[in-house]
Amino acid sequence: MDGTPSYDGDMSVVQQRLQELGLVLPCAPMPVANYVPTIICGNELRTSGQIPMRDGQLQFKGTVPSCQSVEEAQEAARLCGLNALAAASSALDGDLDQITRVLQLRVYIASDSDFDGHSTVANGVSDLMVAIFGDAGRHTRVAMGANTLPLGATVEVEAVFQIKT
Amino acid sequence: MDGTPSYDGDMSVVQQRLQELGLVLPCAPMPVANYVPTIICGNELRTSGQIPMRDGQLQFKGTVPSCQSVEEAQEAARLCGLNALAAASSALDGDLDQITRVLQLRVYIASDSDFDGHSTVANGVSDLMVAIFGDAGRHTRVAMGANTLPLGATVEVEAVFQIKT
Amino acid sequence: MDGTPSYDGDMSVVQQRLQELGLVLPCAPMPVANYVPTIICGNELRTSGQIPMRDGQLQFKGTVPSCQSVEEAQEAARLCGLNALAAASSALDGDLDQITRVLQLRVYIASDSDFDGHSTVANGVSDLMVAIFGDAGRHTRVAMGANTLPLGATVEVEAVFQIKT
Repeated sequence: MDGTPSYDGDMSVVQQRLQELGLVLPCAPMPVANYVPTIICGNELRTSGQIPMRDGQLQFKGTVPSCQSVEEAQEAARLCGLNALAAASSALDGDLDQITRVLQLRVYIASDSDFDGHSTVANGVSDLMVAIFGDAGRHTRVAMGANTLPLGATVEVEAVFQIKT
Repeated sequence: MDGTPSYDGDMSVVQQRLQELGLVLPCAPMPVANYVPTIICGNELRTSGQIPMRDGQLQFKGTVPSCQSVEEAQEAARLCGLNALAAASSALDGDLDQITRVLQLRVYIASDSDFDGHSTVANGVSDLMVAIFGDAGRHTRVAMGANTLPLGATVEVEAVFQIKT
Repeated sequence: MDGTPSYDGDMSVVQQRLQELGLVLPCAPMPVANYVPTIICGNELRTSGQIPMRDGQLQFKGTVPSCQSVEEAQEAARLCGLNALAAASSALDGDLDQITRVLQLRVYIASDSDFDGHSTVANGVSDLMVAIFGDAGRHTRVAMGANTLPLGATVEVEAVFQIKT
């Protein structure tokens, strides 16, 4: 940071913040088909859709609120966000400090036909980004319902980050 | 416009067009969570998802066609578009003339399971943009159905505008 | 390519690859409303949502798997991809070699409420892009379910391509 790198315990600002928040990024999920987790084009890094996987296992399955409560779906949204960050981190050689702004989150929520609490669920990932990045974590957001999501996931999130060029 | 500003009734091209069309922009809706209505990155201004709110009240609720007719949903789409413009206007200090092109509209429509008139509904907002911006209002468009939308809204629209840099 | 154009049978790299794969681009579908098939902004070409039309007829209708099998939906996704390429080709005066990367595909799948094979369906278009463009065809991807799509289509795809500037 200051030109005098300490070789022991040297952490980036974002890594330090993650640690303070008690957060550990999951392993970056590997797509199992002909696509990639992230692409950088200009100063934008976009991710593929992330579902709430941890250690290769889908953690939240089924619609809200019949199969998962709003609180569980929030947790699912948060886990999707951590996976998006893990994917971004992998693309940035581990240096999340290169992220200068969270530009956009799209939050898709598998829902029963009378559900209307999308905003509350999406806050799970929105609040995560602001906790980590501060004002630079405040993004444009689209939240919407879906009758189904891949593998039966409860939530899916795609992210666009602005990065240093 | 011509270097001789008139201090009385001085209106931008877009403001004048809005007036001719008898349109009044609603108050820019304020997100109630950790996100923002718009972000400008380079020459692109993107909005968060807009639902058909006016004066803080959701005007169109429920699926098409059982709860709202196609005509009502068109009106809802149009109101979403006005909210997107209100948000953009707020980001541009009121100067919508900075918009050089409507790049993309995504129109999500809460629908019954046998609905197939998405295009007609989406025309509500597509026609609005062309009425206001002329050829520069012709955009790429994605219309799709959703079983549910935030707060039970009938339509949700997100927009990407190209702006002067 | 090499400054010595052959006037007979001169084909671009992508055209040659399409021929090897036995693929013929459909006629670029014309939007029937106030929007356009594609817009180029900077080095990004984005398409409107494409449904599985061929010769003006929708080829795949209804949800997966009750109305269309997973294999049929894969074929539908592939046809959507061909329509996206047809639209891009039209915007690029027929020269698909200007595409340097497939940046993103969003694949919307009309699904029954217990469907979870979105990835398999989306592979129909993902594999197509890699078959045509090789590594440059590997994209970020979002796949999700929808209870309905325009005209009752089984699949809808939107694409973002990076192009030479």
